[in-house]
Amino acid sequence: MLREDVTEAIRAAVFEELAAVGFARMSIEGIARRAGVGKTAVYRRWKSKLSLVLDLVSAVAAQGLPAPATGSLYGDVRALLEVAAHALRHPVASQVIPDLLVEAARNPEIAETIRAALLDGRQGVAALVVRDAVGRGELPETADPDRVTDLVLGPLYWRLVVVRGELPPGYLDDLAASVVAALTRG
Amino acid sequence: MLREDVTEAIRAAVFEELAAVGFARMSIEGIARRAGVGKTAVYRRWKSKLSLVLDLVSAVAAQGLPAPATGSLYGDVRALLEVAAHALRHPVASQVIPDLLVEAARNPEIAETIRAALLDGRQGVAALVVRDAVGRGELPETADPDRVTDLVLGPLYWRLVVVRGELPPGYLDDLAASVVAALTRG
Repeated sequence: MLREDVTEAIRAAVFEELAAVGFARMSIEGIARRAGVGKTAVYRRWKSKLSLVLDLVSAVAAQGLPAPATGSLYGDVRALLEVAAHALRHPVASQVIPDLLVEAARNPEIAETIRAALLDGRQGVAALVVRDAVGRGELPETADPDRVTDLVLGPLYWRLVVVRGELPPGYLDDLAASVVAALTRG
Repeated sequence: MLREDVTEAIRAAVFEELAAVGFARMSIEGIARRAGVGKTAVYRRWKSKLSLVLDLVSAVAAQGLPAPATGSLYGDVRALLEVAAHALRHPVASQVIPDLLVEAARNPEIAETIRAALLDGRQGVAALVVRDAVGRGELPETADPDRVTDLVLGPLYWRLVVVRGELPPGYLDDLAASVVAALTRG
């Protein structure tokens, strides 16, 4: 394998191992086996499983999301909900995120990396959506992108990851309208 | 100790152990030590740490919450937010809930107990709030209590437990107004 291919194989293996056994039970040995490489290939790149996972979380967050730019606040919120629902329904997200939160509760380094990743990634898009809506006069200049993130991701995270429920037909359309009503109220 | 006192001491010790070391690392031995009882006292009551935790989750959920009954949808939502914010800011909640969710991702028995506990507990209150609001004509008869739960708990859970952020001054007032706007739109 080329050096870049080995790195990619290890990254993919980490997500699979995280989903399968969780952070606490995951080992460098298991990752190497799943990636089809030697343990030294992993240790040459990352000094521990913690630094490996933190690096991956940061890399995923840095990719960011494109601004939806649909031309309306409703359209943008609806688009964000679609992307978020897709991501949160993925088994890796519903297993890996709670898993990392457990570690974060007892490890400030993980907590800070996750916080930074969430702020940079999702909230970056929220800032663009708010900026566009302010530009169109749909939101006041004082509108807070953090509020958008709480209202867009919170209900979906609760329903899909915490309660592990379903999304009834029309749920995202309805939630988008609710979020817009919440943001634009009097 | 009286038999009931032993049971209570064990229950309190389980919450402390869960918060301190997490479900995966928690042991019956550690629980017994913290409770100041012998291991057999624990095993006489529960056959495993899993049945112990599931029993506790069910017990907490069964206590339920009183309906706020403030006389308005805004007042009721604001009261629910206050209780939820208080509970979610408690270290036990922010450590134990994600921990159980991690186990739930790989253990259907835990997943089902949590789902039932959440539905019975919080959503029971939401159903009362919706019933009262429908009675006052503030919400249509088709209003869905699950929607109330998603909008009340989702943003708070996201901000307090996932991102581990703060609540800025006025946040709960503002969120209550947002939730009411979302529920009563069009």
